[in-house]
Amino acid sequence: VKFAGTHLLVDLWGADRLDEPDLIDATLCAAALAAGATILHSHFHHFSPNGGVSGVVVLAESHISIHTWPERGYAALDIFMCGTCNPYKAIPMLKQAFTPSSVQVGEQRRGLIA
Amino acid sequence: VKFAGTHLLVDLWGADRLDEPDLIDATLCAAALAAGATILHSHFHHFSPNGGVSGVVVLAESHISIHTWPERGYAALDIFMCGTCNPYKAIPMLKQAFTPSSVQVGEQRRGLIA
Repeated sequence: VKFAGTHLLVDLWGADRLDEPDLIDATLCAAALAAGATILHSHFHHFSPNGGVSGVVVLAESHISIHTWPERGYAALDIFMCGTCNPYKAIPMLKQAFTPSSVQVGEQRRGLIA
Repeated sequence: VKFAGTHLLVDLWGADRLDEPDLIDATLCAAALAAGATILHSHFHHFSPNGGVSGVVVLAESHISIHTWPERGYAALDIFMCGTCNPYKAIPMLKQAFTPSSVQVGEQRRGLIA
């Protein structure tokens, strides 16, 4: 079975520090490197003081994105990686930074050629 | 049922013009606007002449990303939108620009609070 890449949809609940764009940027870049990816570009937007953060890290092997709702302790991430990267290795960095009480991970294989 | 946003995973097969970063940028921005979203930032990377394109449009309402494999006629997109946007309205713009022979759309509701 060949496929273009593994796309993880990761939901964090009961998470902290979701209103800190600098921490989020550093964490996603560290998570990308932990997965074996190469960072091409990152961009983060802070919606208002103490508000949510949206951002993305564009990788040579696809991307990581995050959108946070700090008032609910909720963050939606996606981690899409092709090649020899292992996107699951990004998850411990997220747990360490945001200390979520629960983490849900869904896996989609994109571009499947049976 | 409340949820944070609708996340579409869109696969294009048999698609054209997947090695044209300017067209891809313009198409994703047009798709975002068609869905009712507000563009905050966009970034596209062209891997080599005639090669694949990776990029993202960061929205006030989440993001659109694309990764293309022109040699296979394949592109993997995700369209994540919260608020009153309708991400399905982005899809006709993709069909018009890339003329895929088939389109697969999967929907995930992120941040579901039953």
